[in-house]
Amino acid sequence: MPEGTRRRGRPPRTESADTRARILAAAREEFSERGYEKTSVRGIGKAAGVDAALVHHYFGTKEQLFEAAIEVAFAPALQAPDAIGDGPLDDIGERLTRFIIGVWENPSTRKPVLAIVRSAVNNETAAAVFRRLIAAQVMRRVAARLERPDAELRVELAAAQLVGCAMLRYVIKVEPLASADPEELVARLAPVVQGHLTGP
Amino acid sequence: MPEGTRRRGRPPRTESADTRARILAAAREEFSERGYEKTSVRGIGKAAGVDAALVHHYFGTKEQLFEAAIEVAFAPALQAPDAIGDGPLDDIGERLTRFIIGVWENPSTRKPVLAIVRSAVNNETAAAVFRRLIAAQVMRRVAARLERPDAELRVELAAAQLVGCAMLRYVIKVEPLASADPEELVARLAPVVQGHLTGP
Repeated sequence: MPEGTRRRGRPPRTESADTRARILAAAREEFSERGYEKTSVRGIGKAAGVDAALVHHYFGTKEQLFEAAIEVAFAPALQAPDAIGDGPLDDIGERLTRFIIGVWENPSTRKPVLAIVRSAVNNETAAAVFRRLIAAQVMRRVAARLERPDAELRVELAAAQLVGCAMLRYVIKVEPLASADPEELVARLAPVVQGHLTGP
Repeated sequence: MPEGTRRRGRPPRTESADTRARILAAAREEFSERGYEKTSVRGIGKAAGVDAALVHHYFGTKEQLFEAAIEVAFAPALQAPDAIGDGPLDDIGERLTRFIIGVWENPSTRKPVLAIVRSAVNNETAAAVFRRLIAAQVMRRVAARLERPDAELRVELAAAQLVGCAMLRYVIKVEPLASADPEELVARLAPVVQGHLTGP
């Protein structure tokens, strides 16, 4: 069998990295499509062409698999705190605002983000993953940059402005917010976010 | 049968106002408990002790019943825009912030609000009800008070700050926001909300 076509079929068991990647891709797709609650490990296994036991073998529980799937989906986002935190403090509000609006405006990132938000709103386990991953990794790293005793609360209230805007604009689709120009939103929100982060 | 105990049993069909109220109470409970998607008209009828056909007779579709149930649950909240809008414009931000945090801090209103948020995040029909009811009735009435061409967008961005705070504090439960003192939140958020509504 030529190398080029072999990959399309089910790979031999020994290709464990490949199998792992396939399970993870299936998990991302299933969780994005159905949300945490309605997704089953069995369904993910089926979509990946493997037994549910093998899914558990590689990833542990459904919660751990969800966390792994989110971590892969958000690999670029999880790098972002560096990009946001590394620049000057006096426009960190604009960088954070542009980053979050950019994630939601990009159709390829909007879908997994929406799936996480939906899952976290509906399910305590998914909310816990959200807290660990987004809160701990993203928010805490921005907070570290502020060097203030109330830095974490500041970052969370700034995040609240952006999360709420995303909810009303992209999920509930309230007008005129849903049709507003992204640049106008950056112009209106960046000073608010900046105020939360570095204001008096 | 004495009047006091008769009400506990299933009332005669002729007591239509009573039946209607009972269906509405069952609908509020079921929608709060399960969210829009998982609630059925049949289940609501069963909880109210009536046939599903009678539920449809009184309230129309599941969507219409959801809207009626929300309208009842939020009757106090839907009066609020008057209370918020009637005072002086220069502390409207604090009144709106106190009102929203008050709704979430009160256990009896938190549950139905949470049910609406969950339903609206998960289901387009529920999102449409949210838009009509909350957006049209609450937001537009606050916006009318501002007398500015961009009033609606201002109100929505102010609401976004409060919605996002509620999401992270009461739903996702991110710390330290989840344990912050409500008065500290009012102190930090009211100026932001005020800025959105009446700022430059």
